[in-house]
Amino acid sequence: MQKNPHFAVVLSGCGRADGSEIHEAVFALLCVQNMGCTFQCFAPNINQAAVINHLDNQPMVETRNVLVEAARIARGNILPLEDFHAEDFDGIIFPGGLGAVTNWCDFASKGTQCSVDTSVREVIRACWEHKVVIGAMCIAPVLVALVLADKKVHFTLGAGGATAEKLEKLGAVHEEVGVTDVCIDRKNLVCSTPAYMLATNMLDVCQGAQNMVGAMCQLMKDRA
Amino acid sequence: MQKNPHFAVVLSGCGRADGSEIHEAVFALLCVQNMGCTFQCFAPNINQAAVINHLDNQPMVETRNVLVEAARIARGNILPLEDFHAEDFDGIIFPGGLGAVTNWCDFASKGTQCSVDTSVREVIRACWEHKVVIGAMCIAPVLVALVLADKKVHFTLGAGGATAEKLEKLGAVHEEVGVTDVCIDRKNLVCSTPAYMLATNMLDVCQGAQNMVGAMCQLMKDRA
Repeated sequence: MQKNPHFAVVLSGCGRADGSEIHEAVFALLCVQNMGCTFQCFAPNINQAAVINHLDNQPMVETRNVLVEAARIARGNILPLEDFHAEDFDGIIFPGGLGAVTNWCDFASKGTQCSVDTSVREVIRACWEHKVVIGAMCIAPVLVALVLADKKVHFTLGAGGATAEKLEKLGAVHEEVGVTDVCIDRKNLVCSTPAYMLATNMLDVCQGAQNMVGAMCQLMKDRA
Repeated sequence: MQKNPHFAVVLSGCGRADGSEIHEAVFALLCVQNMGCTFQCFAPNINQAAVINHLDNQPMVETRNVLVEAARIARGNILPLEDFHAEDFDGIIFPGGLGAVTNWCDFASKGTQCSVDTSVREVIRACWEHKVVIGAMCIAPVLVALVLADKKVHFTLGAGGATAEKLEKLGAVHEEVGVTDVCIDRKNLVCSTPAYMLATNMLDVCQGAQNMVGAMCQLMKDRA
């Protein structure tokens, strides 16, 4: 491990209804810097499954690219996900937002019969192999649970429910936690936190991000 | 003044190159909540002057609406700027991003010969009349300096330079301040902070936002 842990932050667009939830993504980046760590943003170079008007939640007749829109959150400092190499990183974070289950995979429409974008699946499997600590916020733990179900990964979506039950049938294990708490899977090196699955204010989202990044750094130390 | 100050946060889109700088906007909202205050987001219901690809900084052949894109940052909880009434608010914040000088006004292309969007100008004049405390981050103080130049408003863009000099010729007064510092105009009830005009990391942007919101709350107390 490098002296100061280096994080990848993977984005799925820019906006809660068709991409990455902006507050969660920004707080993930802030909290990485707050722990004295560094980050590099990534996003898959694919078109969004949909473009949603965030005023009225209706689809717009437009095409937008996940990487191009995610660059708004990253201030242009972002790489295509195919340039990710697990050996360069200590941790990787997947913020929430519906892009996690519409762009990275199509779980939102197909449930556990969904397919996961190949580059996203390969990144998560490579991180697991290389013991890169994985963090996921809000709805993004669905993705990690799908890809690491065979490892019986523990994850949280805050409260349980139909989505959690579907993923448990694949082998993943859901844990209920509080709004700013972190579900920590020490065996698989996976942390998750509910963020806007439970949060009703930004302070809790930021605190949850801080707790998750803190737990990830602790797992890096324990692993070293 | 209400017991817990209520802030308006005015957005100019979603992304540093053609709208509101996302980190600055999110930290402004976070810091308002962190001071125990509440907020309502607003944006003018107008088309963006341009749509910029944030990967390569080149224009895209698209039309996007400022209010619709700003709704991404506000998670849908946003109103058109014509619904703003100064008497309902204690403070108003304008985050930075190039949208401040391309969508709210066309200063970026026309300098001090620019015109300011009518609704934006009226909001700033109404706030000044009603002693609503004004906050502006990064490049957004340009807008406040343009509209309140006749009041000899004090403002900061971090370091001085050609832009500051142009605005001083109109009557505004530039003050150089450090990256997380706040230029406080007690007479006009205007606070400004450099944010990404000077910042090279997110921690400084967040700290500057916190310092600015703190200074705004203090002006509200002094005024009461």
